[in-house]
Amino acid sequence: MPDLEERYRAYLTCLNERRFDDLADFAHDPVVHNGRTLGISDFRTLLERDSAEIPDLTYVIEGLVVQDDQVACRIRFDCTPVTDFRGLPTAGKAVSFAEHVFYRFERGKIAEIWSLIDTDAIRDQLTP
Amino acid sequence: MPDLEERYRAYLTCLNERRFDDLADFAHDPVVHNGRTLGISDFRTLLERDSAEIPDLTYVIEGLVVQDDQVACRIRFDCTPVTDFRGLPTAGKAVSFAEHVFYRFERGKIAEIWSLIDTDAIRDQLTP
Repeated sequence: MPDLEERYRAYLTCLNERRFDDLADFAHDPVVHNGRTLGISDFRTLLERDSAEIPDLTYVIEGLVVQDDQVACRIRFDCTPVTDFRGLPTAGKAVSFAEHVFYRFERGKIAEIWSLIDTDAIRDQLTP
Repeated sequence: MPDLEERYRAYLTCLNERRFDDLADFAHDPVVHNGRTLGISDFRTLLERDSAEIPDLTYVIEGLVVQDDQVACRIRFDCTPVTDFRGLPTAGKAVSFAEHVFYRFERGKIAEIWSLIDTDAIRDQLTP
């Protein structure tokens, strides 16, 4: 899969442009997310909820490692949630945090995702 | 660097065997860790502290992605800290958690590290 990096970048562009109707072009149905098997409509709900809670959510690649059918990405978010996010009192606060996420692709589409969000960094930024 | 994966696996073996005297074979002096520039002796102190707080700490590779001079690894820890760990009351508790970590190598040695620990998973396991 020589163009896997390109496929992956197109996936993040899809998310940044909120083209959730195109999600099935990039992810299998179902897809496994942090050990949970999700139908693609549930996966879409998850992503839509993030962008509802954080209207200015933009996925910015800080580091990208691609090998065979695997992608690992360090993503930076500089954003202002309008509500609580991941149980943290982020409403109206500008926060900057990283996601470290691994993907396994199958036939050019995401089959499995392991995601970690730096919630400790968010906690630190919310502490007066 | 065709043998970067092998180099990286040897680094984790070095940590698992507590051969901290060999650290300079694997990491530059200084090395940048989560944005902080550390002399190798400070980096060693950091790693030794982890293994003092968690005597049975073992780095187990769950996922590994290698490209050019970059390595991304999903590491699993199943361990029992003897003290608090990362400010969490883990003393005597068996916990299982992941680290998602990215490395940039230079001339076969680690130059930069971006590490995220799944502290939320630890918090969940400590909640009665």
